[in-house]
Amino acid sequence: MESAIAEHLKCPRTRHRRIEDDYAPPYPAWSARAPQAIGQVVMGFFGVQSRGRELHGRACAALMNIVRGFASPDGPGHHDLAHHVDADGYDNMVAIAYWDDPARFERWCAAPDIDDWWRSDERVTEGIGYFREIAMPRVEHYETLFNTPDRAEGVGVVMGGMSTDIQEHAYWGSMRDRIPLSQTDAMTPTGTRTVLGGRPAPGQRVRIGGHENVAMIRSGQEWTETQGQERTLYLEDMEPVLREGMDFLRDQGLGIGCYSNRYMQHIDAGGEPLQKSFGLSFWRSLADMERWAESHPTHVAIFGSFMRYVQALNFQLQLRVYHEVSVLKPDEQRYEYINCHPRTGLLNGLPA
Amino acid sequence: MESAIAEHLKCPRTRHRRIEDDYAPPYPAWSARAPQAIGQVVMGFFGVQSRGRELHGRACAALMNIVRGFASPDGPGHHDLAHHVDADGYDNMVAIAYWDDPARFERWCAAPDIDDWWRSDERVTEGIGYFREIAMPRVEHYETLFNTPDRAEGVGVVMGGMSTDIQEHAYWGSMRDRIPLSQTDAMTPTGTRTVLGGRPAPGQRVRIGGHENVAMIRSGQEWTETQGQERTLYLEDMEPVLREGMDFLRDQGLGIGCYSNRYMQHIDAGGEPLQKSFGLSFWRSLADMERWAESHPTHVAIFGSFMRYVQALNFQLQLRVYHEVSVLKPDEQRYEYINCHPRTGLLNGLPA
Repeated sequence: MESAIAEHLKCPRTRHRRIEDDYAPPYPAWSARAPQAIGQVVMGFFGVQSRGRELHGRACAALMNIVRGFASPDGPGHHDLAHHVDADGYDNMVAIAYWDDPARFERWCAAPDIDDWWRSDERVTEGIGYFREIAMPRVEHYETLFNTPDRAEGVGVVMGGMSTDIQEHAYWGSMRDRIPLSQTDAMTPTGTRTVLGGRPAPGQRVRIGGHENVAMIRSGQEWTETQGQERTLYLEDMEPVLREGMDFLRDQGLGIGCYSNRYMQHIDAGGEPLQKSFGLSFWRSLADMERWAESHPTHVAIFGSFMRYVQALNFQLQLRVYHEVSVLKPDEQRYEYINCHPRTGLLNGLPA
Repeated sequence: MESAIAEHLKCPRTRHRRIEDDYAPPYPAWSARAPQAIGQVVMGFFGVQSRGRELHGRACAALMNIVRGFASPDGPGHHDLAHHVDADGYDNMVAIAYWDDPARFERWCAAPDIDDWWRSDERVTEGIGYFREIAMPRVEHYETLFNTPDRAEGVGVVMGGMSTDIQEHAYWGSMRDRIPLSQTDAMTPTGTRTVLGGRPAPGQRVRIGGHENVAMIRSGQEWTETQGQERTLYLEDMEPVLREGMDFLRDQGLGIGCYSNRYMQHIDAGGEPLQKSFGLSFWRSLADMERWAESHPTHVAIFGSFMRYVQALNFQLQLRVYHEVSVLKPDEQRYEYINCHPRTGLLNGLPA
């Protein structure tokens, strides 16, 4: 067993973990590992927003165009596709792409075919919306968690490696304890989101600046390989409670520090749904996320039923779960929205 | 809103709380307050153990004798009576008594009528068992929590006062954050329980020494004033889950650091059950208690259903809940058992 914090990211502590040194988690979990040369990663959410059947084809074509752009030499090392219908009834398709090098990402962004397309005035007038939500955490600023060591998801894929089983999991506060920065920093939020350009309204190209220590989580599950009792447990017992929690955050999250929540299902390149989903949310702070997770009945129930679930199945799950959590400095965030409705992503709750 | 840690017990921190300074709990709670002159309290568990109907009268008489002893001038400021049947099928009746001054407690103990009775060889041969489990925490070493400010329980009664609503509650880790010692100390356990005299077996007078940082909790609820939906919720939804958790600790607690757990119901002076109960447990450490509370499905479910419950009732509960938690130094613990079976209290798990 090792710490979730990679050896080269350990530093003299000014803040303690929540656990004693002899803590032994009740079941194993793993964190992704990257070579020491990797100092910063990029998690890019490239969205296409549309409303109604008649714009569906146009939206799909736009998404495919974005994905084709990933194939260039400086493109991402990994990407997923996902879809959800938001509270305003819009379809949002998102290509989620990961780079292990921000310089490569910047080159990719600046390549004429990518950049010209993104800057074109046509994007504003096509009748569909676009967004880019880019998180670029330095390796001290994020953590990952997997319930199996054999197949990574998300940023774990571009990190390329996996820890042995880790100590800091299966207790409240372990998320914070896995982030290297928590060794010395409370990750307190300061400042507010700011509109850097445009107005948060349809027909606009809007850039939003994130404040200090915005927290972001992508938390996913795959039930492809579940069978029998486990499948029933997930689909009939856990998923409805998970959905209830996700709906709460989507509809009432702002009041508790959740700027945006999307409960998304993976789709394949042909748009067909896969048996994989995730919640993606942005928060004022890691503390706000912790408070919700620990006190909202739906999330406490999710945690409780997961605990019961893994014990009932004697820790032999076919359900795959993972998450990645980042706490972001202003220079690690870049949000841009083109012709999106004003409750999209980080626009949500900003004055028009 | 104020800190659960009384002003005069605050000191420069070397350890942080789990919450941000701007944390606002979702519902109010209170901590008991004592005058500054009080530096240490005594929580005494005076037990009578018997098995079978035919010894019931003798056990009741013994309990009444103990209670009569409380009436002396140096007696406790408050006491309760409670009963449970343990895993070995023994009836255990306990008088739980509180002093706000250890010197008064020592004088009470040393008074000839009390001391002679306790030391008498008759206690060993009467056919029933006796125990004294005495915790004497200094005020830095314990915390209390109440969901109403108008009526204290337990040590809160002898402390005599109540805070305004406190900040450190309704999150995992708040128990630790309410203990003044947590400002500077991880409260890590060291050492083991030791047999100071006798053998842990029936027919013996056994004294047990507690190790550094044994954690003790009395966590109670009263449903006397609940009605309608709330009463049904408590009795049919919460209580069975609570009982399941209590049974787990009683039967399988040793493996996770719980030396002893008793789920007891209050009784009146005539032995009739009241609509009040509590769990009383001793642990190797506060960390072990935290880990169980946060990961055992029954306790997570209790917490989740309590959260749902208070929100469903718009925080207007008639159910009264409270707890008191101490982390004890060796000199704050005194355990003595006379003719008790070897799984009684702190004897549990010691080699015979």
